[in-house]
Amino acid sequence: MKTCIAIDAMGGDKAPKIVFEGLELFIKNHPNVDIEFLAFGQESVMTSFMTPELSKHVRLHHAEEVITGQLKPALAVRMGRRPSMGMAIDAVNQGIAHAVVSAGNTGAFMALSKIILKTFDGIDRPAIPALIPSDKGCTLVLDLGANIECSAENLVQFAVMGSAYMRKLMNIENPSVGILNVGSEDLKGNQIVQAAAHFLRDHPLVNFHGFVEGDDIAKATVDVVVTDGFTGNIVLKAIEGTVRLFAKQLKKSLSGTVLGKIGALMAKPSLADFKRFIDPRLYNGAMFLGLRSIVIKSHGGTDGVGFANAVQVADEMVRRNVIPDLQAGLEGIQ
Amino acid sequence: MKTCIAIDAMGGDKAPKIVFEGLELFIKNHPNVDIEFLAFGQESVMTSFMTPELSKHVRLHHAEEVITGQLKPALAVRMGRRPSMGMAIDAVNQGIAHAVVSAGNTGAFMALSKIILKTFDGIDRPAIPALIPSDKGCTLVLDLGANIECSAENLVQFAVMGSAYMRKLMNIENPSVGILNVGSEDLKGNQIVQAAAHFLRDHPLVNFHGFVEGDDIAKATVDVVVTDGFTGNIVLKAIEGTVRLFAKQLKKSLSGTVLGKIGALMAKPSLADFKRFIDPRLYNGAMFLGLRSIVIKSHGGTDGVGFANAVQVADEMVRRNVIPDLQAGLEGIQ
Repeated sequence: MKTCIAIDAMGGDKAPKIVFEGLELFIKNHPNVDIEFLAFGQESVMTSFMTPELSKHVRLHHAEEVITGQLKPALAVRMGRRPSMGMAIDAVNQGIAHAVVSAGNTGAFMALSKIILKTFDGIDRPAIPALIPSDKGCTLVLDLGANIECSAENLVQFAVMGSAYMRKLMNIENPSVGILNVGSEDLKGNQIVQAAAHFLRDHPLVNFHGFVEGDDIAKATVDVVVTDGFTGNIVLKAIEGTVRLFAKQLKKSLSGTVLGKIGALMAKPSLADFKRFIDPRLYNGAMFLGLRSIVIKSHGGTDGVGFANAVQVADEMVRRNVIPDLQAGLEGIQ
Repeated sequence: MKTCIAIDAMGGDKAPKIVFEGLELFIKNHPNVDIEFLAFGQESVMTSFMTPELSKHVRLHHAEEVITGQLKPALAVRMGRRPSMGMAIDAVNQGIAHAVVSAGNTGAFMALSKIILKTFDGIDRPAIPALIPSDKGCTLVLDLGANIECSAENLVQFAVMGSAYMRKLMNIENPSVGILNVGSEDLKGNQIVQAAAHFLRDHPLVNFHGFVEGDDIAKATVDVVVTDGFTGNIVLKAIEGTVRLFAKQLKKSLSGTVLGKIGALMAKPSLADFKRFIDPRLYNGAMFLGLRSIVIKSHGGTDGVGFANAVQVADEMVRRNVIPDLQAGLEGIQ
């Protein structure tokens, strides 16, 4: 089956340049993948980036309007299906494309996706999940920034979605879930995490472990760590920063001598897991988990390499046909 | 001058055992320090832990009551100066001791310290700061868990206190301050960080940089990173967990061969900064910054090594006479 991916060509700090660089790179790196892209944006601008190779895989669709990075989501919603982002999302809704990718305004992308593509039953707001390297493989952490402020109900829904993700996409039988907090004791934390924990203790779809702390992500104490998008985003970036600093200091201390250089070489393979943290472009492409279609957000400041990776995430999710699996997971169907 | 430190002998998961082990260890490791401890707790229990060496430095004071780990701060406040914790704090208030150390209930310890010892003018709530290794040395991050929910005013006060700390205790001339957020753009984040940033933009005592992200801690983008105690606590522990995991994987990959072992040896010295994250006991002992006296909180689950380190922090703060410096910093006196 030919995969068709809708692309918001105008989203991102350096769009549409990095978008077309990303598409070209993806095509070059995946010569055998049967794929078509529908690029939405200002046609005159897009045309200037087209190459003979791109013309084989990319079809351009003109959009008069563009959603800027600073536009409030509520205003973006009013623009609806007119701007390039709305048009790209609507292509999925109409069944023309299997997935949509944008590096544009996150709030607007989420709001429009929610309205046009809808969330699963029982899910109010999608969340961004990420698999973070841990002692046993990886820990799924969500939300990583889609929802800055979350209610207890949102956290409960993230727990359900995270469980479905690990059960259905990572084949973990009865994934354990923890809520990120300042301590593991039941009395710790604010009212929101307290209420969420209360709801989760007897939840039929969640194997609730209780509260977990920041270091439990690396320890793999649980399979799924639930938190609000404010804390999650800051924690993910703090981990990234730490790994990059650690790697830098390590390199410095090992580069002085021949023996050190050999040591550095030996350390390389087993530190590969951490590499994706050192080059954030390599894990660019975050799913809005909870939507009824595949919607992939690329980082706004990414380059062609990063955008190509976001496209790859979208392509993989389409090929794995993740939506029916996630839906089954949410309904408790085993 | 002989330093006198008040000790809440009954605070901590394994108190008073770890408290007396800690005191003994401190005395053993600092044979030339002129120090006296006033230990408050149930005399019959404390006596059983006394040794001839401890008797030279420790005076026991009987307290009938004890604040448990689960007691709500409001109830602890009602117990006032009767329990061991309140008595120890009051010893500082009366001028008998220069500092107080407890591994007990954090909320109770903060509430009682605030009431008995008072905060500096203009400071409503103390914060826990920590110096986190960064690309240029270290970044001061606060609050790390004293205040789970913070107002914009609290964050502004943390910015002022953090600036005073870096200026006066770390000799940084015009420390820059950032508020931790999900993005560096002015529009990002929730209402609390937005309002705090608004107040800080023209603040006479703060060199405000703007919003910073999680990875800016390691990058040393600013000298002081301000955040609420919920986010700060989780971020600190996530960094700890990451470093421990990274170190573990590194060790594993280097231990297989002789060359690898040599490489590991070479990496050791320049990774020393990270070591304290791998053994949290070595940086146990957090100051309640903002109080008019030196109040040191030890982690509740620590052992003798950790408690000895908390005592060492208290001793150093007393010898450096930090309180007048911090007060001057808060008043903008250069």
